[in-house]
Amino acid sequence: MTRRCIERGLVAWLTGLPGSGKTTVARLVAERLRSEGYRVEVIDGDWARTTVSEGAGFTREERLRHIKRIAWIARLLARNGVIVITSLVSPYREARSLARGIIEEDAPFMEVYVKASLETVMKRDPKGLYKKALQGQVKHMTGISDPYEPPENPDLILDTEAEEPEESARRLYEAIKARLPREG
Amino acid sequence: MTRRCIERGLVAWLTGLPGSGKTTVARLVAERLRSEGYRVEVIDGDWARTTVSEGAGFTREERLRHIKRIAWIARLLARNGVIVITSLVSPYREARSLARGIIEEDAPFMEVYVKASLETVMKRDPKGLYKKALQGQVKHMTGISDPYEPPENPDLILDTEAEEPEESARRLYEAIKARLPREG
Repeated sequence: MTRRCIERGLVAWLTGLPGSGKTTVARLVAERLRSEGYRVEVIDGDWARTTVSEGAGFTREERLRHIKRIAWIARLLARNGVIVITSLVSPYREARSLARGIIEEDAPFMEVYVKASLETVMKRDPKGLYKKALQGQVKHMTGISDPYEPPENPDLILDTEAEEPEESARRLYEAIKARLPREG
Repeated sequence: MTRRCIERGLVAWLTGLPGSGKTTVARLVAERLRSEGYRVEVIDGDWARTTVSEGAGFTREERLRHIKRIAWIARLLARNGVIVITSLVSPYREARSLARGIIEEDAPFMEVYVKASLETVMKRDPKGLYKKALQGQVKHMTGISDPYEPPENPDLILDTEAEEPEESARRLYEAIKARLPREG
């Protein structure tokens, strides 16, 4: 593998309900880009909440602070040539708009809506969180006890009910490649 | 300027009392390395506390969390070829040891003690914080109401009482260059 040094990367900001498939798609795209020599970081919520955002809670205020923090970190990475794929529920329009404002000072920002109905994600329930939320064991569960505000004008929509993860990944990969600066 | 792409960077972790000269030295070194084409980020406390670490306080527990967060961010950057110079008081040995543990999973870590006596930094008092602390207007002021635990075995000591900032910067620059991986 030859390392590709690009002057700046970008941030693909995946948003969607828990279980919509954000991290699955992010990892597939990261793997492909890495195999081509790009520097890539996937920042997903579970990872962030045990490292850079340890102790962050789930109230509206805490979510806003968490999202702003991740936006700053993504900006630092992207301006140093890293392709950043964030995989966070990021349910509030206000928070995603703040993230865009922070990142676009230094690097391109794409809002990617990873779309699946509540019915579908509750069936998938990969972490068992919906079940727990319905039993009252998880507070602030997006889709159940907390709102999810879908993007009004996303740069890309990945409908994970209508397409397989590989197809979503291919479309995200192509959207990212189209936005990268020319090399040289 | 030709961009230099190195496979991984490193983290130079500057620690010292407020007013010891950490940020002054960090900026001089960053400027020189950038002029040579390296990717460099300076993470100083004032910046971090308004961006990635917004809302972090100054109790021992909050400082520990803040330091761990910065360590994770520095690790992400350094493993992507960025030279990171942190400029944080980071008064606790325990916190610096945690930072080293986090960073060394992915990149070299240098502890750099920016040394100046309390008498000297109180005279310099560039932000007027010592004055305020003595008047009881600033709580948790390192050196006054909070402890500073000097490094026991730092990788480098910069004595900013005995040498000019340019001399400290030259010595830090050389220590960093000696630890960078070979290019190519």
